[in-house]
Amino acid sequence: MIPYTAPVDDLRFVLNEVVGLDAIAALPNCESAAPDLVDAVLEEAGRFASGVLAPLNRVGDKEGSKLENGVVRTPAGWKEAYTQFAEAGWNSLPFEPEYGGQGLPWTVAFAVNEMWQAANLSFGLCPLLNQGAVDLLTEHGSAEQKSVYLSKMISGEWTGTMNLTEPQAGSDLAAVRTKAVRAEDGSYRITGQKIFITYGEHDLTENIVHLVLARLPDAPAGIKGISLFIVPKFLPKADGTPGERNDLRCASLEHKLGIMASPTAVMAYGDNGGAVGFLVGEENRGIEYMFTMMNNARLGVGIQGVAIAERAYQQARDFAKTRVQSKDLADGKGGPVAIIRHPDVRRMLLDMRAKTEAARALALFAGTQLDISRHHPEPAVRAAAAARVDVLTPIVKAWSTDIGCEVASTGVQIHGGMGFIEETGAAQHYRDARITPIYEGTNGIHANDLTFRKTGRDKGTSAKALIADMRATADALASLPGDDAVVIRNALNAGIEALEQAVAWVVATQAEGDLQGAAAGAVAYLRLWGTVAGGWMLARSAIKALEGLQRPGANASFLETKLVTARFYAEQILTPAPALLPTIVTARNTVMALSEEQF
Amino acid sequence: MIPYTAPVDDLRFVLNEVVGLDAIAALPNCESAAPDLVDAVLEEAGRFASGVLAPLNRVGDKEGSKLENGVVRTPAGWKEAYTQFAEAGWNSLPFEPEYGGQGLPWTVAFAVNEMWQAANLSFGLCPLLNQGAVDLLTEHGSAEQKSVYLSKMISGEWTGTMNLTEPQAGSDLAAVRTKAVRAEDGSYRITGQKIFITYGEHDLTENIVHLVLARLPDAPAGIKGISLFIVPKFLPKADGTPGERNDLRCASLEHKLGIMASPTAVMAYGDNGGAVGFLVGEENRGIEYMFTMMNNARLGVGIQGVAIAERAYQQARDFAKTRVQSKDLADGKGGPVAIIRHPDVRRMLLDMRAKTEAARALALFAGTQLDISRHHPEPAVRAAAAARVDVLTPIVKAWSTDIGCEVASTGVQIHGGMGFIEETGAAQHYRDARITPIYEGTNGIHANDLTFRKTGRDKGTSAKALIADMRATADALASLPGDDAVVIRNALNAGIEALEQAVAWVVATQAEGDLQGAAAGAVAYLRLWGTVAGGWMLARSAIKALEGLQRPGANASFLETKLVTARFYAEQILTPAPALLPTIVTARNTVMALSEEQF
Repeated sequence: MIPYTAPVDDLRFVLNEVVGLDAIAALPNCESAAPDLVDAVLEEAGRFASGVLAPLNRVGDKEGSKLENGVVRTPAGWKEAYTQFAEAGWNSLPFEPEYGGQGLPWTVAFAVNEMWQAANLSFGLCPLLNQGAVDLLTEHGSAEQKSVYLSKMISGEWTGTMNLTEPQAGSDLAAVRTKAVRAEDGSYRITGQKIFITYGEHDLTENIVHLVLARLPDAPAGIKGISLFIVPKFLPKADGTPGERNDLRCASLEHKLGIMASPTAVMAYGDNGGAVGFLVGEENRGIEYMFTMMNNARLGVGIQGVAIAERAYQQARDFAKTRVQSKDLADGKGGPVAIIRHPDVRRMLLDMRAKTEAARALALFAGTQLDISRHHPEPAVRAAAAARVDVLTPIVKAWSTDIGCEVASTGVQIHGGMGFIEETGAAQHYRDARITPIYEGTNGIHANDLTFRKTGRDKGTSAKALIADMRATADALASLPGDDAVVIRNALNAGIEALEQAVAWVVATQAEGDLQGAAAGAVAYLRLWGTVAGGWMLARSAIKALEGLQRPGANASFLETKLVTARFYAEQILTPAPALLPTIVTARNTVMALSEEQF
Repeated sequence: MIPYTAPVDDLRFVLNEVVGLDAIAALPNCESAAPDLVDAVLEEAGRFASGVLAPLNRVGDKEGSKLENGVVRTPAGWKEAYTQFAEAGWNSLPFEPEYGGQGLPWTVAFAVNEMWQAANLSFGLCPLLNQGAVDLLTEHGSAEQKSVYLSKMISGEWTGTMNLTEPQAGSDLAAVRTKAVRAEDGSYRITGQKIFITYGEHDLTENIVHLVLARLPDAPAGIKGISLFIVPKFLPKADGTPGERNDLRCASLEHKLGIMASPTAVMAYGDNGGAVGFLVGEENRGIEYMFTMMNNARLGVGIQGVAIAERAYQQARDFAKTRVQSKDLADGKGGPVAIIRHPDVRRMLLDMRAKTEAARALALFAGTQLDISRHHPEPAVRAAAAARVDVLTPIVKAWSTDIGCEVASTGVQIHGGMGFIEETGAAQHYRDARITPIYEGTNGIHANDLTFRKTGRDKGTSAKALIADMRATADALASLPGDDAVVIRNALNAGIEALEQAVAWVVATQAEGDLQGAAAGAVAYLRLWGTVAGGWMLARSAIKALEGLQRPGANASFLETKLVTARFYAEQILTPAPALLPTIVTARNTVMALSEEQF
């Protein structure tokens, strides 16, 4: 077993000091997020993640989930762990008390989600998607649908899935072909094949609630002709328990690079005449509803990036402290030392940690804005927060998952040859992480989303508002003493400057109608955003560390790590970021210059 | 089967236009490298790589090599392919005709090696290490050792291995514990365990020649007390055929992330009293000799980085041309198009190609310098070339393998969800590539080598000589017409400027005695070197393309791709490189700032 220790102190510091959980707890319907309760939740979740889920990560990778005679068997210990997970109420954290939820803010749920994903990414996917499904039905389901499904899904007795992709319809949902026809009883009959359905079939729960995109025969072509249906594995009986088996099955599971224990199903609907589906909301508005779930899942996947980075960091750190090899550079006469004494190993560990902490803080900051957008009494404040969430969602998804892959790769590297041996465990993180920049929209799609929908559409207004927040942090650093504050402030200001120019260029380029040119620079544009926003978060962390260090009785050692990590990020990661600006604006010179045949 | 087409046109262009094979063919003992013969070699090697080795890549990954009752079985088809490979003489390309070699320059051998590695990395490792072993014995073996072993290894009837690593001695060879004791007949008895021995046992040949580092009982402590031994699997009889089985065995094979078909063996020597070993050269000079093999293998592994990048590029390009998804941004009314029409997919493909071509040219340039260092009649020219090889070896090894991993990862990304499915094949490249920054010295070790041995030791003299070559290329661009030449020249000059400052800093920092500070910046220093040197190579490529485009009858389409690729590299990869300079010089501020307990 490869240990995982939930970073409860780090999470608490980010929640309380960096993103301001107190302000969230003061919002209507968020009162339960009192410091004591949140502390208890974090501690208890940490114990569950470390004690129950983490030990199953390796066995999950080795055994994988298997399809046998139409039944998907999760690995040994999986079902017991899930039952414990559900019984402890972990599915219900951020949901409405009316349906059995605990009414905690998403900010807290995000922090807890990180622990599940870090402990066991394959396991964590099941509740991650279930949360998105609950969010969707809470928002768009009918009263009856809520009464039948929500409490079961919030309790975790049933799980929800997301059925979008078809062989010809991946990023392009307009190409969905799965058919829905109206039945006489007001329900629908669904026929078609869906692929890449995470936990599309499993043995963890007595029922599975599929949320399926399909097209009615008379629907308009394209994206505006897609409807959303609830298609349960077992049709609920009048008493709410699972009844008749629906006409759907898992046709096969994919053989994947990683997340072996998470069953990725090909789902066949309607082999015997049509699966019974129940329309969510109105016909032809399915994509709109599904965006509720997708936005939720995108932030969730971004948190997976943070999580796998944390897990890889812990493993590499433990290895670096115990693996003895070569002399200390500072002591040519001594014997071999633990490799954490070697500067490049330190650099790698700090790089892993700095990226992880920056991405974590940004995800939790997005959580606060999500909570404000839902609960703040003033509409203008809600709208401003919603605009922040809109801008941040593609960044949290794509930047954090890129970081997850980079950090997992660095983790392998720190292990040297042992990193390439599967028994060590570092390689599993590297394999598992690799899906996160792909699913829930490839990171390229998110870069386009940031460029077009989130920057171009409002002519940079929301983007500039967020940048103004960053400026305020840079200004606040000016009043603090010491070299660290100067270095961090200068790096942040230079990053902000580049970001402002990039936003202006993105807006102008779209105004000129050069959509290809804007798209060519999109990934670098998102990378710049993530890097600067992450630097902003660590600047806030540094401010709190500097302030804290002046207080008697502070945990100086802990605060020092925050300060050094922030400075490392500023010098090693943020300082080079403005060099992305020329790559953003020049990509259009070459990207479309060759014909397809020249590739 | 996933096709691979050997990039013969690209290789020919680099050899003839960019690195100047004509000058190499004019050297004594390199005359066989006449254009016609080299062309024929490239074409024939390309056919063999594409037709025989590439189809075995996937089956190799699925089946892997297996240890059964002490015997390692390579995957189906492996042995037949190896026999064909050896019979066609592919092992013998760069070796002395005296022992059956073809006497071709290493420059040509490198180009051919790329094809083996691209077609099938797991297969290619066997001849890669054998070449290093041949190089070592050619340089340091006795006349008798050469007569017994060399012709067999050059013909490929026997293969050579490299036995350095032990559980406690990875990067730190001073810690080698394997014992050697003198026997009465002048041979030695070897006892100990070696790990991570590539092709340490296999069924491809009738004998295996292990080159083993071991320590005599009365040897000095540390690195200067290690001797090198030939330890054959079967002791050669007087007639040169394999005789009695030696006291060595494969104890187990590692279960790895990738290169599944390449058996990575734990080797046990002397279970029954001691394996018979024959000393190479003098006692206690083993490390010095082994460096011949390591330097050879390091360049070979760098070429693996190029190779896996090329392979991943080809696969992603083929996918991008056939996968239809989403509308063309430039044509909002049309239907879905092949994803190669999407700017970000193009950008990824160009990024893959630009990095691959830069790394390829740099490796082949290193090949020319290796040939000059061995064959040029003038000692001063040989010495200057040897100095270039010294500087370039860690760069080719580390930068190219980092690029191999990056490009393989981008290849996965272009495939979207399909990239994560093993059947697609993109994931195999991603897994296989990951070993290359680790073996033959981790890339961090090479960064230290570049920083200390290759820059600090001669106070930057060799580094500056290489930079002067780069300046000459930048100056040559000034006389060429058009915007492309201006852009490339400016980017190269800025890169050179940063590199000069970095060299000066590295030299000064070591002079001050701040070894930790120099080491903290080492990886970024190597990255800067690789990026600028790669840009230098593509600038030379651009010059030849611009000149060629002015000639009637030139292949304009081909030359245009070279020009666009060079400009893409200049704008997207080289332009941001100077931003590495501040990271090199500031790393020491933070890297050692925390205690081990704070991690």
